[in-house]
Amino acid sequence: MNVKLLIEYDGTDFHGWQRQPGKPTIQAEIEDVLEKIHGERTFLYGAGRTDSGVHALGQVANFHSLLPHTPEKWREILNFHLPPTIRILDAEEVPETFHAQKNAQSKIYEYRILNRRVKSALHRRQWFIPSKMDWAKVRSALPMLEGRHDFRSFQGPRPSVKTTVRTIHHAYLVEHGDGCMAIRFQANGFLKQMVRTMVGTLVEIGQGKRELASLHTALEGGNRKLAGATAPPVGLYLCRVIYNP
Amino acid sequence: MNVKLLIEYDGTDFHGWQRQPGKPTIQAEIEDVLEKIHGERTFLYGAGRTDSGVHALGQVANFHSLLPHTPEKWREILNFHLPPTIRILDAEEVPETFHAQKNAQSKIYEYRILNRRVKSALHRRQWFIPSKMDWAKVRSALPMLEGRHDFRSFQGPRPSVKTTVRTIHHAYLVEHGDGCMAIRFQANGFLKQMVRTMVGTLVEIGQGKRELASLHTALEGGNRKLAGATAPPVGLYLCRVIYNP
Repeated sequence: MNVKLLIEYDGTDFHGWQRQPGKPTIQAEIEDVLEKIHGERTFLYGAGRTDSGVHALGQVANFHSLLPHTPEKWREILNFHLPPTIRILDAEEVPETFHAQKNAQSKIYEYRILNRRVKSALHRRQWFIPSKMDWAKVRSALPMLEGRHDFRSFQGPRPSVKTTVRTIHHAYLVEHGDGCMAIRFQANGFLKQMVRTMVGTLVEIGQGKRELASLHTALEGGNRKLAGATAPPVGLYLCRVIYNP
Repeated sequence: MNVKLLIEYDGTDFHGWQRQPGKPTIQAEIEDVLEKIHGERTFLYGAGRTDSGVHALGQVANFHSLLPHTPEKWREILNFHLPPTIRILDAEEVPETFHAQKNAQSKIYEYRILNRRVKSALHRRQWFIPSKMDWAKVRSALPMLEGRHDFRSFQGPRPSVKTTVRTIHHAYLVEHGDGCMAIRFQANGFLKQMVRTMVGTLVEIGQGKRELASLHTALEGGNRKLAGATAPPVGLYLCRVIYNP
């Protein structure tokens, strides 16, 4: 059976999604449980690799199993063995050909910023920015990022992809209240650190440290130095992975 | 100067608001900082005592000081010394006669319930109820609690008040999304464990364990045994204290 998992995690104490020797990662935590159950190594295909410290509200992954467990049973077994910071929200049987990464049509990422004078006592998983921000300016910059562009300037170091062209379907601002602002992006794919670099650049625009037009220059220039600083991972959430029905 | 503080806290690791010998409490944490700064004991008047494990998004308290610090400076000093789970969101100078508890007109409490099959990896400060709930039934029960009533049946043990009559101005349901539901109450005052007992009773109604009409019986009967179980403190938030302008 090919099992598709919907996964929520708090990335704070993990070195990202992808398995790495000697470091706690989400993929390794789940694969280790699968190995214990199967008695042999079982590979878990993730829809996307999230960086160290990045969270997920709806990561998707799949694995193949010859065991007779129902998807419901897989959800229960995995949640029983996994740490409380990783939760399987849902499990379902999918066709054998389904592949969480290859079949993904688009993804939604959200970056959360707490923009007020004082940190929160209750919510620490966001980028705390106490300085004044012009959110109307940030909002007006977002449409520039929408559409098909070469996002080479917004890519992190040591890239591993052939093409840096991606299509952002929507880029918009959401107000969560009490000073919490979120910038949400839906795209057919994201380069390494692309959301964090876009957010870092947008924040510099909002703080008046950078001109609105410089976003256009960065997009056209194809050079990482034209974009802003990379926003910290703490505020980034993989919200949803969208597949064709 | 009489200084009014607006306070947010995560109550998980505290034995409630009120100072108690040998136990960490919110009042003691803040008073201890004030004592360090003043060189003598400085009393902090809180708008309401929250129980052990209960949180606040907008607790209010005040203290009198002869030091020349501006309210802004007090906010900074306190936040510098306090643990990250207690944050002073705002500080302002108020008339000498202002008293955080005596002048409070009404308070808003919110009780958060995560009603879905799986716990959250990111948000643990809510009551997790995996069983099916009839929220429409809960919503229809709320108006029964509104108005002026004797809430004796919804009072915790060892009460210390003269009258158990309170007026609930509003009782309503808020959907926070992803299975998080909140029941919000605005009243001129609350008895000990009153919100938690009302919520415990409402949840039993939503689960079909108790008739809708039993809420009326409990209100009229004046006997704690007629109400439901006390909901755990983890989901309770003191949201706001309202004063006359």
